[in-house]
Amino acid sequence: MHRTKIRIVEDALDANSTIAQANRDDFDRSGVKVVNLMSAPGAGKTSLLERVLPLEGVRAAVLEGDVQGSLDADRLAGRHVPVTQINTDPGFGGECHLDANMVRSALPALPLDDIDLLVIENVGNLVCPAEFRVGEDVRVMVSSVTEGEDKPIKYPLMFRTCDLVLINKIDLLPHLDFDLEKFEYHLDAVHPGVPRLLLSARTGEGLDAWREWLARLAAREPVSV
Amino acid sequence: MHRTKIRIVEDALDANSTIAQANRDDFDRSGVKVVNLMSAPGAGKTSLLERVLPLEGVRAAVLEGDVQGSLDADRLAGRHVPVTQINTDPGFGGECHLDANMVRSALPALPLDDIDLLVIENVGNLVCPAEFRVGEDVRVMVSSVTEGEDKPIKYPLMFRTCDLVLINKIDLLPHLDFDLEKFEYHLDAVHPGVPRLLLSARTGEGLDAWREWLARLAAREPVSV
Repeated sequence: MHRTKIRIVEDALDANSTIAQANRDDFDRSGVKVVNLMSAPGAGKTSLLERVLPLEGVRAAVLEGDVQGSLDADRLAGRHVPVTQINTDPGFGGECHLDANMVRSALPALPLDDIDLLVIENVGNLVCPAEFRVGEDVRVMVSSVTEGEDKPIKYPLMFRTCDLVLINKIDLLPHLDFDLEKFEYHLDAVHPGVPRLLLSARTGEGLDAWREWLARLAAREPVSV
Repeated sequence: MHRTKIRIVEDALDANSTIAQANRDDFDRSGVKVVNLMSAPGAGKTSLLERVLPLEGVRAAVLEGDVQGSLDADRLAGRHVPVTQINTDPGFGGECHLDANMVRSALPALPLDDIDLLVIENVGNLVCPAEFRVGEDVRVMVSSVTEGEDKPIKYPLMFRTCDLVLINKIDLLPHLDFDLEKFEYHLDAVHPGVPRLLLSARTGEGLDAWREWLARLAAREPVSV
């Protein structure tokens, strides 16, 4: 008798990886590049999308993850891109992250065949979102200079697994005791040489580079900065 | 035959409540008032402790919760108060909150009989810490004005279950598009009339009121502001 060993999918993270791969396959089939956008609450994820969407020459859509409400989706609705909302609150008191299955449940609502780029805005949290792949091509995180220089070493997993760090709110640097060199030193300690962009959603500084990065990703060009 | 119905402790939150109550009993026996201090990453929890400790006439200690490292405990070590560190990273990729059992495991290291006040600095996160009582008397949360006006409605559980909101970094108000009135409107929508203090760890504004609040709590006086 021929016998085959099958490894049993044992835990939540294994199950998540399986579903994330199924999402990836669907995105690949539709030719959609996917960004998982993460940060602490209030770092500026939505503002940094509001300021660059719609993006010339790119058919983009946004999937909004929040514990409750649709505030961010409402803000983006004015940007003339398709926006879909996921709320995590039917779970255990409100899940603090998106997982692959939540994203999967939203796929039927997404116009995958009509877009080149999907940005998934995760729940504001520096811990758990980093533990769950959702089928993304790249991870972008926003770190606001108001949060202090120590964040890379306090929340290393997120900084270590991201492909681009958007250092936001740099217009506030003159009013803060924030040492950018020290922040980058800590960043390089946990993720040596990770690409980074300095920007301000408020003044617009650095937004051209962020637009260009997204456009190159959507066009399947190399996205080093 | 006499029969007694016993309700089975069914889930993680029930178990947490049981252990939180055991912690409370220990704190009460030692006459210690306990603050669970919570916020998003970088809102200023540690700075707001650094600036008011040691507190005249109060024997205080701090229990520091972090995913990794002891940066905050190291900062507080210079304040001449007992500081104990818990790291949550032996858990599932780093737990994003403290629970009652983690705090319980730290009790033997705390000088409970020699203090009046214990501040438990939770992991920086606006979602899950609100779901786990750890045996505290009161919950204090820090909300930085750099995080935007919408946070109470996006993370309602934490704002709804706290006893005091410290609105921090008000020295930055002239440089932000932050509408304080709108923030308080949202705050009152989820937690009508919750006490709040406006302050700046950087300039020292409002710190006297925060010191007084902690001293009154430690002295078992009413703590309305």
